[in-house]
Amino acid sequence: MKAIILFGHGARDIRWREPFDRLAALWRSQHPDTPVELAFLEMMQPSLEEAVSALSIVGASQIIVVPVFFGQGGHLRNDFPALLAACQEKYPEIILSATNAVGDDLAVLQAIVDFGGRALRFF
Amino acid sequence: MKAIILFGHGARDIRWREPFDRLAALWRSQHPDTPVELAFLEMMQPSLEEAVSALSIVGASQIIVVPVFFGQGGHLRNDFPALLAACQEKYPEIILSATNAVGDDLAVLQAIVDFGGRALRFF
Repeated sequence: MKAIILFGHGARDIRWREPFDRLAALWRSQHPDTPVELAFLEMMQPSLEEAVSALSIVGASQIIVVPVFFGQGGHLRNDFPALLAACQEKYPEIILSATNAVGDDLAVLQAIVDFGGRALRFF
Repeated sequence: MKAIILFGHGARDIRWREPFDRLAALWRSQHPDTPVELAFLEMMQPSLEEAVSALSIVGASQIIVVPVFFGQGGHLRNDFPALLAACQEKYPEIILSATNAVGDDLAVLQAIVDFGGRALRFF
């Protein structure tokens, strides 16, 4: 069974995670057969490894990690591959893979431009 | 004349800004009459004040700042309003306003879910 992890940066303020919770809820409503977990790089739980563990327990055999980041800097180029490799070593029976950051996706960028366009008309 | 600032966090790695440059290019191609500038909270230039200054020079009388952040934590709840207020004080002739973070927008979140859905079929 495939599963997905939406991987974010994390922050001290618990309210920071609200859009991530909404993302997970949207995913669950639209992909009810594909379990989803959130995971955070720092300052928030669960960690990537905890999310992989949770999905392993529910029977995931393949997990796709989607970095919910705009840019790809040190966190995604250095920290994230190391975390992913450590998870793969700990869970060798699970096929772990990762996409590019969502900020690489033209449709995501277009949605942001559209949001700005609506703001332009509103203000 | 209205103008827009796309306001991001910033990072040490210059490649982090690539999606922001793409965002600005998309904006320019779709809203050629509304100048756009990027601005960053930290570690990248220009600052919010520098972007306001640049738009002031080209004749902006109203600037809408769009925080290109997912979550709203300390940066957006504390640092950003203080920066915006300082800019407003320095440029009293410009009407400055700000939208919510783009991570509040359902269409942006849906685009991320769609991206994950395509990854699910690909992997």
